[in-house]
Amino acid sequence: MKKRLIATLALLIVTQSYALAGKDFDMLEKINKPDDVKVLNVSQMEELASEIRQGILNHSNTIGGHVGPDLGIVEATIALHYVFNSPKDKIVYDVSHQIYPHKMLTGRKEGFIGKIDPKITGYSNPAESEHDFFVVGHTSTSLSLTTGMAKARDLNGEKYNVIALIGDGSLSGGEALEGLSNGAVLGSNYIIIVNDNDMSIAPTNGGLFKNLAELRATKGKAENNLFKAMGYDYLYVEEGNDVEKLIEAFKSVKDCKKPTVVHIHTQKGKGYKPAEENKEFYHWMLPGFLDAEAVAAPQPETYTSLTTDYLLEKKKSCKNLLAVSPATPGATGFTPEFREKMGKNYVDVDIAEQHAVGFVSGAAKNGAKPVLAVLSSFIQRSYDQLSQDLALNNAPTTILVYWGAISGMDMTHLGVFDIPLISNIPNIVYLAPTTKEEYLAMLDWSVEQYKYPVAIRVPFGDVVSTGKKDTTDYSKINTFKMTNKGEKVAIIGAGNFYQLAEDVQKEIKAKLGIDATLINPVYLSGVDKDMLEGLKKDHKVVITLEDGVLDGGFGEKVARFYGASDMKVLNYGATKEFTDRVPTEELYKRFRLTKEQITEDVSEIID
Amino acid sequence: MKKRLIATLALLIVTQSYALAGKDFDMLEKINKPDDVKVLNVSQMEELASEIRQGILNHSNTIGGHVGPDLGIVEATIALHYVFNSPKDKIVYDVSHQIYPHKMLTGRKEGFIGKIDPKITGYSNPAESEHDFFVVGHTSTSLSLTTGMAKARDLNGEKYNVIALIGDGSLSGGEALEGLSNGAVLGSNYIIIVNDNDMSIAPTNGGLFKNLAELRATKGKAENNLFKAMGYDYLYVEEGNDVEKLIEAFKSVKDCKKPTVVHIHTQKGKGYKPAEENKEFYHWMLPGFLDAEAVAAPQPETYTSLTTDYLLEKKKSCKNLLAVSPATPGATGFTPEFREKMGKNYVDVDIAEQHAVGFVSGAAKNGAKPVLAVLSSFIQRSYDQLSQDLALNNAPTTILVYWGAISGMDMTHLGVFDIPLISNIPNIVYLAPTTKEEYLAMLDWSVEQYKYPVAIRVPFGDVVSTGKKDTTDYSKINTFKMTNKGEKVAIIGAGNFYQLAEDVQKEIKAKLGIDATLINPVYLSGVDKDMLEGLKKDHKVVITLEDGVLDGGFGEKVARFYGASDMKVLNYGATKEFTDRVPTEELYKRFRLTKEQITEDVSEIID
Repeated sequence: MKKRLIATLALLIVTQSYALAGKDFDMLEKINKPDDVKVLNVSQMEELASEIRQGILNHSNTIGGHVGPDLGIVEATIALHYVFNSPKDKIVYDVSHQIYPHKMLTGRKEGFIGKIDPKITGYSNPAESEHDFFVVGHTSTSLSLTTGMAKARDLNGEKYNVIALIGDGSLSGGEALEGLSNGAVLGSNYIIIVNDNDMSIAPTNGGLFKNLAELRATKGKAENNLFKAMGYDYLYVEEGNDVEKLIEAFKSVKDCKKPTVVHIHTQKGKGYKPAEENKEFYHWMLPGFLDAEAVAAPQPETYTSLTTDYLLEKKKSCKNLLAVSPATPGATGFTPEFREKMGKNYVDVDIAEQHAVGFVSGAAKNGAKPVLAVLSSFIQRSYDQLSQDLALNNAPTTILVYWGAISGMDMTHLGVFDIPLISNIPNIVYLAPTTKEEYLAMLDWSVEQYKYPVAIRVPFGDVVSTGKKDTTDYSKINTFKMTNKGEKVAIIGAGNFYQLAEDVQKEIKAKLGIDATLINPVYLSGVDKDMLEGLKKDHKVVITLEDGVLDGGFGEKVARFYGASDMKVLNYGATKEFTDRVPTEELYKRFRLTKEQITEDVSEIID
Repeated sequence: MKKRLIATLALLIVTQSYALAGKDFDMLEKINKPDDVKVLNVSQMEELASEIRQGILNHSNTIGGHVGPDLGIVEATIALHYVFNSPKDKIVYDVSHQIYPHKMLTGRKEGFIGKIDPKITGYSNPAESEHDFFVVGHTSTSLSLTTGMAKARDLNGEKYNVIALIGDGSLSGGEALEGLSNGAVLGSNYIIIVNDNDMSIAPTNGGLFKNLAELRATKGKAENNLFKAMGYDYLYVEEGNDVEKLIEAFKSVKDCKKPTVVHIHTQKGKGYKPAEENKEFYHWMLPGFLDAEAVAAPQPETYTSLTTDYLLEKKKSCKNLLAVSPATPGATGFTPEFREKMGKNYVDVDIAEQHAVGFVSGAAKNGAKPVLAVLSSFIQRSYDQLSQDLALNNAPTTILVYWGAISGMDMTHLGVFDIPLISNIPNIVYLAPTTKEEYLAMLDWSVEQYKYPVAIRVPFGDVVSTGKKDTTDYSKINTFKMTNKGEKVAIIGAGNFYQLAEDVQKEIKAKLGIDATLINPVYLSGVDKDMLEGLKKDHKVVITLEDGVLDGGFGEKVARFYGASDMKVLNYGATKEFTDRVPTEELYKRFRLTKEQITEDVSEIID
C-alpha cells in the first residue's frame, strides 16, 4: 500500500545519496531519559539535534516512516525536555507523527540508531514509555485530550504543566478547533505549542492559515490573533529551530497560571536539504529512500492513477466536476501535477473531513458533480455528516474510500471499519468494485447520476483487469452478479475478496468435487433478496467474504436474511479488534481467510 | 420524551396566560411569497413581525416546538426576504430550529396560524418549498453546505447570493469551524449571518464566545476579530431586532464579491417576556405552555432524575467525578440547579461532541471519573473520537446515551443508529439496562472501574423498578442474564425491549403453549457464546428484540453466531430508513414489534 502511495505520487525526483556510514551518536548514546538532556549546554544540544536528525533518517530509511515533520521539531523537543519535567509535566503530541525525537530522548533510541528495533512504533504509545500518555494516530485530537488531562489535574488538586504540541495543519480539524475554544476557559495551567511550519501534508488553504501567516509575517504582532481572541496568553517564537530561543520561551511559560499558546515557527524537513526543498514529498518515506537513485521508470497502472486519469478526462465534458481532498491528496493520487491540471475543479479543504462531506453535499445539491477522495480510516471522522448532510438529503455525490482492507497497518490507521460505518446509513449506496472495468463503470455511473449518495470502496492492491468493458446498469440497486451458477455451496466475495472467492470456488471443486456458485455482490449496503431467496432451492451453505470487520458488516446482513431458513451461513472477515502492525498474511490465517481453511470449514458443514 | 425533557428541566415557573383569542393576521394573510414582503414599508414590516411572533407562539402552543430561537430572528428573516431574492438567492438556516418566520413568509403560514397544519415540519424541508434547500436538524452544518453551494454556483458560472444564517451556539461545532475556515477562501460572493443572541440552548462557555462578547461590547470594533482574522469582510449590527437597520446592513453586503460576515446581535425570545427572561427554558416548549399555570407539583422519578441524584450523591465521595454535557444539559436533566450543585465537577463544552469525547478520554486517563451525557442522535457526531481517543486508549469513561429508541421523532433526530455506531467499535462495552436497579448498578460499576470505556443506553420511557438491588458483577463482559429457562424458543430482549420480550414470552405461552426461555442480554457489544451455544440443545428458535435499526445492530451478531447451526434466528428492530414523525405505535406495527405479530411469526417457524 505504501508502495502504491509513492507510486501514485508520481514524483520522480533524484534523492541525494546520504552518507550514513561512519556517523556516530556520541551525544545520543548518553541520553537515556529526559534528565540527561537537562545537563547539556547549548552547543551539546545542537550536536544532539544533529544526531537526532540522523536517527530520524536512519529509522525511516530502514523501516519507513515520517521524515519532514520529525526533522522540523527536533530543537523544540530538546527544549521541552530541558525546560519541563516529563512525565510529571505531560506533553501530548498531536497525530504523534513528529514524536521520533521525543522517543529518542525518552529511552527508546534503539528504534532509531544502531540496528533499528522495529518494535518501537512510529506513534505515541503508552505501552512503550511512561512519557507517552495516549495511543494517537489521527490528527486534531491533542487539544481535547489535554484539556481533559488538565481538568483532571485540577480536580485532583495537583500541580504540573499540561502541554499539547500541535501542528498548524492539524489545527483545521474540527476536534482541534472545538478543543481550542474549550481550552481557553480552563482557568489554570495549560500550554499549547503551535508548531507552525506552514504545511499540512500538502499546502494549507483555509482562512485559519491566513491568520497564522499574518502572525508569522508580523512576528506575532498582527492585530488579529485567533488565540488571543479566544482568551489565550500568546507568545511567538520566530526561530522555532533555535534551541536557545525555544528554551527561553518555554521557561517563560512554565508553570503559567492560565491557558497559553506558544506559536513557534519551524521548518518542515529542517536539516535534510531534499526534505526542506520538497516538503510534501518527504512527509513520509519508504525504506531505502536515502540511497534510491531516481529513474524515469514508467508508472504502473494503479487504482489511483485510473481515478486521476478518469477525472482529468471527465473534466473536459463536465465543467462542474469537483474533486475534493481533505488534506490527503498524495495518498489518493492527487499529485501537484493533477491538482494543477484540475485547477478550480479541485479543492483541498485542509484536514476537515466533516466539512468535506458537508461541502460536497452542498455542491451536489446545487448542481456540481463532486468526487471526494478519502481514506477508510479517516472517513469515520464524518459519520454525522454522512448521515445528515449527505444521506438525509440524498445528495448525488461520489465518495471514494481508499485503503479499505485488512492489512498490517498501525492500530490507529486500520481500514476495516468503513463497511459497518457507511453501509448501515440509510440511502447511501456503497459499491465494492472487483476489477478495473467495474470500478471505472461505477465511478462514471455515480458521477452521471442524480439520485443517490454513492460511496465506492476503491479496490486495494494491484489492478485486476478483465479487458472487457463493464456495461452493468448500477442503478439497479442491490442487484448482485452471479458469475457462476453452481450448487450446494454459494460463495459471495465482496470487493477486494472477490478474487479470494474465485480461489475458494476452485479449491472446493478440487477438494470436495462441488461446483460452487460464485457471486460478486457489488453492493455492500444491501442484499439481493431475490437472488438469495433463489439459492435456497439447491444450496445448503452460503459463504460471505469481506475485507473488513465482521461486526456490523456485510456478511451479517446475509446471516440475518437466512436466519429463519435452513440455509447455513459462514461469514468471513476480521474480528472486532484493533490489530497493530500484524502482517496481513498472519491476519488472514488468524481470521481463516485462506482458501484451504474455508474449504475445510465447508467440508465440515456439508458432510 | 418531550414530556420527560420538560420534567427533568425541573424548572417550575409561572408562565403568563397569553391572550391568543382575537389576534388577527391582517399582514400575514397577504404574504404568500417573499415578493409580498418587498412592497411593505417599515411600519408594515413591524406589524408583520408582531404577527409572525404570534404565529410562532400559536404553532408551539398547539403542536410543540421551538420558541426562543424563532422569536429572536423575526426581523432578520423579514429583512432577508426584503433585500434578497429567494430562491434565486439561497438562504440556508443552521439547525433550522429558527426557520418558522421563513416558513411563514414562503407560503407555509398554515403551519402557524388558523387551524395549525401539523404537516409543516419544524425544520428546513425542500419537500415543502423551493425556498428550502436541505433537510437540516443537527447543528453546525450550514457553513459547509453553503460553501459547497457557492462553489457549485461558481463552477456553473452563475451569479447570485449564497447566505448561511448560523447562531452563535452552533458556531462552536467542529463542522462549523472547519466550514468557517474554508468559506473564507471561496474568493467569491458568500455571506454568513452570525445570529448572536449570546446563548446556545444553555449559556455558552468556550473561548470562541469570549471573542463574540468582545465584539458585541465594542459594537464590532474589538481589535481581535475571529472573522476578520480568517479573511472575511465584517459588518456588525447592534440592533439585530430592528428591521430597518438590518435592511440597511443586508443591502450593503448584497452581491458582495468576497466572503463576508454580518454579525447581528439579537435577543433570544424577543417579544414574549417569559422567553426573554428565561431563555434556556423557552428554547423548546410543549403544547399548551401558554395557558399552563405552574404548580409546585412533585417531579416524577425519571431516568434523568435518577442520574442526577446519583451524580450529586457520588460527588460526595468522589471528588474527581466529572459530569459533562455538549450543550444539551436540559435534555439530560442537568438543570441549572444541578449544574450549580456540581460546581467545578460539571463542564458544558458547548456544541462540541468530538471535543467532549476527547475531553472525557483525556480526563479519564489522567485520573478523573468522567460521565458524558449525550443524546443518541448526537453521539454520532463523535465516531472517530469514540474509536481513537476513547476505545484505542481504553479510557475508563462512562457515556450515557439518552433517547436511543424507535420513536416518532423528526427524521433529523432519530435515536436508532447508536447501537451499530457504538457496539461495533472494539473495546467499548455498551450496556443496555432494563430497569432502574440495573441502570444504577451499571452506572456505579462503570464509574468505579478503571478498565473499560463504557457506554450505557439509558432506558427510554417510564422508570421500571424491580424494587430489588442489583448485585450483578458487570465486569464479566458479555455475560447475558437468563431470566427464565424454558425450551424450544428463546427470546432475547435488549434494553428498552426487555419488557416487550416478557410480553412475548407470555403470549407464546398462552397461544402456543410453549414455555419460552427469556434472556436479558445486558451487553449490546458482544454475545454470550456459552449461553447461546447452550441453547442449541433444546431450542429451535432464537428471537432478538432491539430498540434500534437492525442493520449492523445487536441481532445480526446473534444471527451470525448461529449461521452454521440448525438454530433459526428471527431479528426484530427497525429497518434501515429515515422515518419522519411516524407515530411510534405505527412503527412498531410496521416492524412487527408487537407481541401478537412476533408470536405469529414464531408459530409459523415452529410448526
